[in-house]
Amino acid sequence: MRVETAGIVGLGLIGASIGLRLKRGIVSRVVGMDVDQKAVELAFQRGAVDEAGTAHGLLRTADVVFVAVPPQVTVQAALQAARAMRTGSVLTDVASTKAGIIRELEERLPPGVRYVGGHPMAGSERRGAGAADAALLDGRAYIVTPTPRTDREAVSVITGLARQMGMRPVVLSPEDHDELVAQVSHLPYLVAAALVAAASDEAAQLSGPTFSGFARVAKSPVDLWTRICIENRTAIRRALERFRAELDRIEQALDDETELARALEKSQQRVTQ
Amino acid sequence: MRVETAGIVGLGLIGASIGLRLKRGIVSRVVGMDVDQKAVELAFQRGAVDEAGTAHGLLRTADVVFVAVPPQVTVQAALQAARAMRTGSVLTDVASTKAGIIRELEERLPPGVRYVGGHPMAGSERRGAGAADAALLDGRAYIVTPTPRTDREAVSVITGLARQMGMRPVVLSPEDHDELVAQVSHLPYLVAAALVAAASDEAAQLSGPTFSGFARVAKSPVDLWTRICIENRTAIRRALERFRAELDRIEQALDDETELARALEKSQQRVTQ
Repeated sequence: MRVETAGIVGLGLIGASIGLRLKRGIVSRVVGMDVDQKAVELAFQRGAVDEAGTAHGLLRTADVVFVAVPPQVTVQAALQAARAMRTGSVLTDVASTKAGIIRELEERLPPGVRYVGGHPMAGSERRGAGAADAALLDGRAYIVTPTPRTDREAVSVITGLARQMGMRPVVLSPEDHDELVAQVSHLPYLVAAALVAAASDEAAQLSGPTFSGFARVAKSPVDLWTRICIENRTAIRRALERFRAELDRIEQALDDETELARALEKSQQRVTQ
Repeated sequence: MRVETAGIVGLGLIGASIGLRLKRGIVSRVVGMDVDQKAVELAFQRGAVDEAGTAHGLLRTADVVFVAVPPQVTVQAALQAARAMRTGSVLTDVASTKAGIIRELEERLPPGVRYVGGHPMAGSERRGAGAADAALLDGRAYIVTPTPRTDREAVSVITGLARQMGMRPVVLSPEDHDELVAQVSHLPYLVAAALVAAASDEAAQLSGPTFSGFARVAKSPVDLWTRICIENRTAIRRALERFRAELDRIEQALDDETELARALEKSQQRVTQ
């Protein structure tokens, strides 16, 4: 299936970044919609869409639609988009939790639209089309999460577009996605928030490069991340258990140089693989 | 006191970055030394020093000497530098732990040289003059750690140079330094190492922007950081206790959206101050 027109629902940081990237010769046309007229205007000014508005009508022209709205409104936005889309077109979303959203959408989506969940592992602590940047996507994983009910061509359409956008497509079940992303995204965010909260005011003002990096992560929008973490709390608690075990191991090694070096080497090997 | 010539002992990442910055019109001449001839050549090629060698003789011409070697050899390197330096010249070091080093140096340094400890809160996960960059210093805190025995002019010479290098001088006791830096540098490094070690191989390969940031921190040289963390382990354990309390508070809030949002707001307020 050839994608001529892509649609984007939600012209925020991720939606507009995808629009900017797709417009670099990957599709002929990008149409966008957002319930907020200001977001529509900003995305248009930034050049992330060829045409955009606050109504769903434009989505009728799209071969593929990306729903890029906060996780708590993803199901509703996907259902509304599906009603406007043509039979046979492909629908995907970019929410950072997958199993719950996909379970609900597979029950409620009308037949005709081919849906597959997805999650581009890209972003920043900022939000809105003003912060959108095609470079956020460069080289990042684009996780696609089919179930036994997913249309196979829908999967290859999204993995194909991901590759064209310079990303690394990774196919996982929704459950595996949630488990793994808890370890590399949700828990790291909570840990950064805890570290920043734990530092005294005087310490926070010293802020070397390491702490500044944590502080940037902790600046991510609280409303968005609260929803994500509540939704995926079971997997996050498992990731937290693994993390605490490693931290205990490191603390226990703090009295012995050889043991501490050995404990720290484990992370070195992971990151230099 | 006017600083015409600065000396640098240890032409690695920090030493060479300071050299590069001082050569931008702050001092007339930078002389360097390193026990490793290759480091000497690299620093010279990078333009971090006007003259450099493997012997201490050059330090005789310096008004101020920065000892920028790993913490476990800082005392020895500072004592050797002091023997080569002129009476009245100022000696400082850049090690990231202070109380132990300063206690030992104040006992063992010969009279005549004016010593004050310091710690520019700058760096990266890389090492060596090849990775040196004057921009690493931009806007960072430069902590200076006098004791009751410290010569006051030595303090103002180092804070003055820090300001000229575009850094923010902060004066702290050696003990306060160690306590605060455990919170914003040493513990964050250990937490990053634990997070990276705790992720499964499959998860680590997904590596979004947040995890990549942690992974970069965890790449820091293990030998260097092992020494730093062992040296400052008492303060690190106190910082770890504060961190664990915040993490527990966040985990307990994972079942309730309002509570979790409130817990996360605490970090937001800290970083947007």
